[in-house]
Amino acid sequence: MKILGIETSTFSGSVSISDDDTILCEYVFNTGPRHNEVLIPTVGRLLSDCGLAKNDLEAVCVSVGPGSFTSLRIGVSTAKALCYSLGSDLAGVPSLEILASNALWCGDGVCAMTDAGREEVFVSFYDPGSAEMTPAEITTPESVCAKVSKKTVFVGSGALLHTNLIQDFLGDKAVFLPANLNNPRASVCTFLGRKKILSGQKDDPFTLTPFYLRRSAAER
Amino acid sequence: MKILGIETSTFSGSVSISDDDTILCEYVFNTGPRHNEVLIPTVGRLLSDCGLAKNDLEAVCVSVGPGSFTSLRIGVSTAKALCYSLGSDLAGVPSLEILASNALWCGDGVCAMTDAGREEVFVSFYDPGSAEMTPAEITTPESVCAKVSKKTVFVGSGALLHTNLIQDFLGDKAVFLPANLNNPRASVCTFLGRKKILSGQKDDPFTLTPFYLRRSAAER
Repeated sequence: MKILGIETSTFSGSVSISDDDTILCEYVFNTGPRHNEVLIPTVGRLLSDCGLAKNDLEAVCVSVGPGSFTSLRIGVSTAKALCYSLGSDLAGVPSLEILASNALWCGDGVCAMTDAGREEVFVSFYDPGSAEMTPAEITTPESVCAKVSKKTVFVGSGALLHTNLIQDFLGDKAVFLPANLNNPRASVCTFLGRKKILSGQKDDPFTLTPFYLRRSAAER
Repeated sequence: MKILGIETSTFSGSVSISDDDTILCEYVFNTGPRHNEVLIPTVGRLLSDCGLAKNDLEAVCVSVGPGSFTSLRIGVSTAKALCYSLGSDLAGVPSLEILASNALWCGDGVCAMTDAGREEVFVSFYDPGSAEMTPAEITTPESVCAKVSKKTVFVGSGALLHTNLIQDFLGDKAVFLPANLNNPRASVCTFLGRKKILSGQKDDPFTLTPFYLRRSAAER
């Protein structure tokens, strides 16, 4: 199955094309708030590099948040429009699950944490016992630390931004990842989205919406 | 420091531009044995996407092997020619260290293992006690398993190819990574190469050679 992945939940973003679980190509950009300009030209470029036509795309998987308000809207709108136009399957994937995937295999608890601005973070915990992630919430890094009682791997822009605070609270219980593993990637979005599609949980391009935990500045 | 990363030790490859430890952009391609056609156009494309000129590149970090004979030569030759032409610093980085980086943080032993063809693998072990990697060697997957006595994370194309064999030998002692973490990435090459350059261990564009563990078919 040829799958396009789109990940725009943070300041940076990425686009990938996979064939089942094989990454054919992936482009990561961290060039400022220009997702709107970058996204469609990048899709065209990657398709061309892979020798594929847009009609070869059988599915589009997109990161649905929580995350940056405007860039999530751009990513999800683009994914929906492509699926509507091309008749491809659609799968929305929670952004914090994409991030947590970089650490889930280690056997310890994982805390996926991205910067939500205003000294807050978007956060979701993975418990290796239940093998499930808690619902995403928005809170302070101090409240996150107060919930941690055993060895936990911190991943994401929030973990990078608040490393000192987390270490002061938790000492050796907190484990951090190298810089390259702290960004969600489109290729990981396609792995998770493909599983969703294969298990029959497709999303509808008419109704899929980004997942917000805070109203936009305009709505407030 | 603006750094170009080049990773071509496997069938797939990647090129990245970082500013210190921040990835500005990265392109991953898995489009067959076309590194020679892809490399320089990709460097030009990424520089343009980042708003940089080639003379802005202060360093080039390149994966030096062990790995695919021809594609390593293409990657290392390109890196040396760029550094010679632009006057940038050069750092060669062992390919198995780039791979192992995806798992080193977990606290367990790590076995970086890539496919060497003819039922052999390139392999290097990381021991969390000494915090060092063993010299890369070429051997059989069975010999690798015979050396493992405690929980070990397997990473790389060799681990993917021989998953069943490793699991039969080692059972629960063997841990595997999700598909996206089993490829070496140019952005990780730049993290490791930058540390080398900052500690004064630059390489010389006149003398750097790929690291082989086997003579080429032509030499044999």
